[in-house]
Amino acid sequence: MSEIIKPDFSKDPNGLIPAIAQDAESGEVLMLAYVNEEAWEETVKTGRGVYWSRSRQQLWRKGDTSGNVQLVKEVLIDCDRDTVIFKVEQIGGAACHEGYSSCFFRKVNKDSTEIVSERVFDPKKVYNK
Amino acid sequence: MSEIIKPDFSKDPNGLIPAIAQDAESGEVLMLAYVNEEAWEETVKTGRGVYWSRSRQQLWRKGDTSGNVQLVKEVLIDCDRDTVIFKVEQIGGAACHEGYSSCFFRKVNKDSTEIVSERVFDPKKVYNK
Repeated sequence: MSEIIKPDFSKDPNGLIPAIAQDAESGEVLMLAYVNEEAWEETVKTGRGVYWSRSRQQLWRKGDTSGNVQLVKEVLIDCDRDTVIFKVEQIGGAACHEGYSSCFFRKVNKDSTEIVSERVFDPKKVYNK
Repeated sequence: MSEIIKPDFSKDPNGLIPAIAQDAESGEVLMLAYVNEEAWEETVKTGRGVYWSRSRQQLWRKGDTSGNVQLVKEVLIDCDRDTVIFKVEQIGGAACHEGYSSCFFRKVNKDSTEIVSERVFDPKKVYNK
């Protein structure tokens, strides 16, 4: 199959689609962020995880502040072309700004919440220099 | 940690947040869909994957048409409470309406696209009865 398929950014009013970052080795889902066309193109071209920050309204080259860049090993696209997966090597071992390896560090039970991940770094030391 | 945490549906104008369905055994990401508060509550309460269909604008109890229901084994929530993961057992072996085990059956290379998943069923036989 030689046709190159890209996401359909026209579906969303802001031209954004969700990008799931998944650990390329373990399969652990690390985070979900968003890409616009520019972030998508840069990620595919450079092999580094680049997103669109909805809070800051700017391109977000993950790791610029924390050093925890993502090396993108594989890119997958879904049937509807409105979600992508970046299979990554997460430098520093933590994708989450709270210092956990995954942003999904909490398990929801019917009557409680439990922490299911180890903290890799102290966010105060990384971000509040 | 005894406090029960739920998603913050107020962040989105439509009250929707993305829900990643991941195979509980293999870790393969099967699909991404959306939940509103009602779908979330029903999923957590019943242990069956329930979403909000944006195209049909109605509650979507996955598997009602295809029989391919999802048994939710574990629920995870992210740091910002605006994305969840449902770790599921996918009955019928295929989450995708195109008959693949995962909706993410295409790998995007710099100059080509390749199919990286096996087709489990023929969608014509399942949906066009």
